[in-house]
Amino acid sequence: MRGSFITLEGGEGVGKSTQARALAEALRALGLEVVTTREPGGSEGAEMIRALLLGGPEERWTAEAEALLFAAARADHVAKTIRPALERGAWVLCDRFLDSSLAYQGGAGGLGTDRVRAINLFGLGGTLPDRTLVLALSDGAERARARDNDAPDRIGGRPADYHDAVAAAFRGLAGEEPERIRCIDAHGAPEAVTERLMTALADLLPAQQITPG
Amino acid sequence: MRGSFITLEGGEGVGKSTQARALAEALRALGLEVVTTREPGGSEGAEMIRALLLGGPEERWTAEAEALLFAAARADHVAKTIRPALERGAWVLCDRFLDSSLAYQGGAGGLGTDRVRAINLFGLGGTLPDRTLVLALSDGAERARARDNDAPDRIGGRPADYHDAVAAAFRGLAGEEPERIRCIDAHGAPEAVTERLMTALADLLPAQQITPG
Ligand SMILES: Nc1ncnc2c1ncn2[C@@H]1O[C@H](COP(=O)(O)OP(=O)(O)O)[C@@H](O)[C@H]1O
Ligand SMILES: Nc1ncnc2c1ncn2[C@@H]1O[C@H](COP(=O)(O)OP(=O)(O)O)[C@@H](O)[C@H]1O
Ligand SMILES: [Mg+2]
Ligand SMILES: [Mg+2]
Repeated sequence: MRGSFITLEGGEGVGKSTQARALAEALRALGLEVVTTREPGGSEGAEMIRALLLGGPEERWTAEAEALLFAAARADHVAKTIRPALERGAWVLCDRFLDSSLAYQGGAGGLGTDRVRAINLFGLGGTLPDRTLVLALSDGAERARARDNDAPDRIGGRPADYHDAVAAAFRGLAGEEPERIRCIDAHGAPEAVTERLMTALADLLPAQQITPG
Repeated sequence: MRGSFITLEGGEGVGKSTQARALAEALRALGLEVVTTREPGGSEGAEMIRALLLGGPEERWTAEAEALLFAAARADHVAKTIRPALERGAWVLCDRFLDSSLAYQGGAGGLGTDRVRAINLFGLGGTLPDRTLVLALSDGAERARARDNDAPDRIGGRPADYHDAVAAAFRGLAGEEPERIRCIDAHGAPEAVTERLMTALADLLPAQQITPG
């Protein structure tokens, strides 16, 4: 059986990477094979594109070129890493995916969600997330965690109002696709957040075998 | 006044680079400022993408990722090199452009012309060639010249039937847009070919001043 494809989304510092690790553990404890990956990158070619995207000065790429590079990296990532894993029955947990392009380049960057979706669908061959978990924090909490995180890259270093627009764009996307995209409260202890995420995946999980005692 | 944007197209070895140089000289002799450039590449960012596209093994990129990388490079090339030149009144002569993606990735590569056109138009901001000159040779003559040319890269090294499909795709594109795209016989001496190209640009050239003797 094909595995489930789960993506974690949200702004800088909301806890995506922390939760990707915790969620992978929780799913493995249920006996599932889990592949964790992240964007941009996740395959040899996509990592080469990642270096072009996140290095260099802000004006290195126009908004359109940046969006096309993300779409190219994603096409490679899906073909080389994600689809093969799903086909052999593994679950794939991806830290950022299509919705990050829609929120960052499409919404906050002003290119438009539909146009950015179209160039991405071109490369995905129909492989789309079964469930997308958007981690949401109040603006103040998001910034505090982002400050504790790694040094910001070419995109993370953009001004606060850009990041506010990103958060608003994620909320808009969740409103348009409530079945696929779930907004999850990311305040509180990591373990509490992981529990909320598992609840939002409950309908995708295999029925639990009750091992006769 | 905005300059004219001219692209040279055709398969490997038909004489695009030779004619780009000769045509630039002929246009400069008329007093025009001419910028020559070529794809993939032609701007700092696009040259970085070129290195990803033309190096590495054939299976380095899926067809979709390759097409998106060409579109990203083109978006940067137009924004950083071509549009600024046209806006200051220069003519731009570009060795390969959009129609190469349509013929190679769209036609010969099987992705479809319309889908490949769409991802490219996303990045071009409306900057399209005023005239496209497709150099056409019989298959035998094309292969003989291609053999004399530089060592083939990741795309030039594809099999003969791929290159035959490219040539057929260029003929198809010219049939769809006869006003913009002109097929030019590329047999014979370089000087004779340059004359044919200049004839195909005659309606775009500024009216010649007759200097009183
Ligand atoms: N639930 C939480 N409570 C407090 N701090 C957290 C929580 N989750 C993550 N953090 C911390 O916040 C910072 C950003 O977390 P991270 O998982 O890297 O976010 P993201 O991947 O979304 O940028 C890190 O320093 C991390 O340890
Ligand atoms: N009109 C011509 N007749 C004979 N050889 C030519 C002619 N034009 C170009 N060549 C030669 O053919 C080869 C390919 O030409 P080139 O301009 O590099 O083609 P392209 O840029 O289309 O690949 C080169 O060795 C060049 O010197
Ligand atoms: Mg992270
Ligand atoms: Mg050439």
